[in-house]
Amino acid sequence: MYPVERTLCPACRSRQRGGGRTDARGGGPARAGPAHSAGDFGRGKAHQPLPACAGCGDACETAPGKGCLPVKLYSSVLSPYARKVRAAIHALGLQDRVEIINVNISASPAEVVNANPLCKIPTLLGDDGTAMYDSRVIVEYLGVVAGSDMLVPAAGMARCMVLRTQALGDGIADAAILYRGLLAAGIAPDAGPAVRQMAAVERGLAALERMARESAPDAVARPDAGALSVGCALGFLDARFAELGWTGQYPALAEWYARLCRVDCMRRSASQDTAGTCPSGASYR
Amino acid sequence: MYPVERTLCPACRSRQRGGGRTDARGGGPARAGPAHSAGDFGRGKAHQPLPACAGCGDACETAPGKGCLPVKLYSSVLSPYARKVRAAIHALGLQDRVEIINVNISASPAEVVNANPLCKIPTLLGDDGTAMYDSRVIVEYLGVVAGSDMLVPAAGMARCMVLRTQALGDGIADAAILYRGLLAAGIAPDAGPAVRQMAAVERGLAALERMARESAPDAVARPDAGALSVGCALGFLDARFAELGWTGQYPALAEWYARLCRVDCMRRSASQDTAGTCPSGASYR
Repeated sequence: MYPVERTLCPACRSRQRGGGRTDARGGGPARAGPAHSAGDFGRGKAHQPLPACAGCGDACETAPGKGCLPVKLYSSVLSPYARKVRAAIHALGLQDRVEIINVNISASPAEVVNANPLCKIPTLLGDDGTAMYDSRVIVEYLGVVAGSDMLVPAAGMARCMVLRTQALGDGIADAAILYRGLLAAGIAPDAGPAVRQMAAVERGLAALERMARESAPDAVARPDAGALSVGCALGFLDARFAELGWTGQYPALAEWYARLCRVDCMRRSASQDTAGTCPSGASYR
Repeated sequence: MYPVERTLCPACRSRQRGGGRTDARGGGPARAGPAHSAGDFGRGKAHQPLPACAGCGDACETAPGKGCLPVKLYSSVLSPYARKVRAAIHALGLQDRVEIINVNISASPAEVVNANPLCKIPTLLGDDGTAMYDSRVIVEYLGVVAGSDMLVPAAGMARCMVLRTQALGDGIADAAILYRGLLAAGIAPDAGPAVRQMAAVERGLAALERMARESAPDAVARPDAGALSVGCALGFLDARFAELGWTGQYPALAEWYARLCRVDCMRRSASQDTAGTCPSGASYR
């Protein structure tokens, strides 16, 4: 979608509109265009560096931290994927640049549909109308904005291993959410589709237990995207599958998780702790 | 999981076992350990460069194309995610290094469960027991193995835009597959959960139509991971949702897709064309 015709970066356009900085509260910024247009479709324009901003001289491509400001994160309290993004925002120190807006996604709110045709949370919507989704892409994007590979290593096998752990955490959450969805739709817990989803959760936890046993105790102090994904999936199980009692079955994982939960970005992304950091002041409950 | 204690790279271990090169046919290579162990869990050992191989001197971290050979791809004929990986294998020229094994994933085959606790396809299993999943992670990994950013740009906003398009393609496939799953479980097509999934498919197609209208005609000649994901999702709709008749509703997208389908990696990843490239000789039908 990349609007290559743009001559001012978002920060300069915001200043031109009278704001000293990009206003995270919104206030109806002009949208540069639909959230989906050409350029990123089959190795098109998006692969070219952007022209430098006519105002400050920044080229987003080369200095994304300066010119590209994310603005709104459509979120929900209990979504493990949205929480992963909130935790990433805190880990990267971007909390005062993102307004977190809780939505009821099953009501297909127009602002989310306009930004993300899949109508899912989390969806990130920039001041210029650029939307990012899903959670893994947002985490990558936030790293670009912050100019940091703290959450996802920049290259090589280290990158792949973090991404795989992220896929494992997301996959456990996917299976748990699908299990709940099947039951809500009237499927019996012992029917094949439900059994398969719960088996994936159980096997995922067992794999995490093995990983936790071999993990260095201090490895969790600066969690990457894989650890955040796993932590948020475990938090979701605590909230929605308390009857699983997973902490009793997987002691090394429980200990790892307890340490992770004390890390600042995990604490602040938990539902009870995030309201204070939301520019809109909206409650997370 | 990263076996940092290893002193020989996979290629050298293969040679030590008597093979002139890593044998893609398998033949029971010794597994270095369980597919999930520590190191990639909370910024642990995986973030350290691997020690150089005692045989050839390669460090996988710095020269992944030399030391790290993927071997088996667990796949299925119609999975759009598995097809995306098959297309990526062809696009990156890795087809003679990967054995493609079709499995019935709903039967939870042991070899897939051992490699991927989520028991999903595609799952890639290396000669050393290293497993990679899901499809997005495998595409990244194959790029590392091939030493190429052809499918996913190495950094910056260009990377994010390709990943977002990939998420859109995957998301359309997710919604279509979930819709089918709901109907198979006895949910009516006009019930809320099914309606929401089909709405996501329709909105996704409409967004792709806008993107296709603005896409340069030659942009599709060297498809990236976003284009492959979209193309494989559309191929899945053709196979399973012929009644949608999407090509009539979205003419620019239909034209874009027709061009994409003529690209070598898409042709060769289609079910009827891949059997010839599979080292095991297994049929894809």
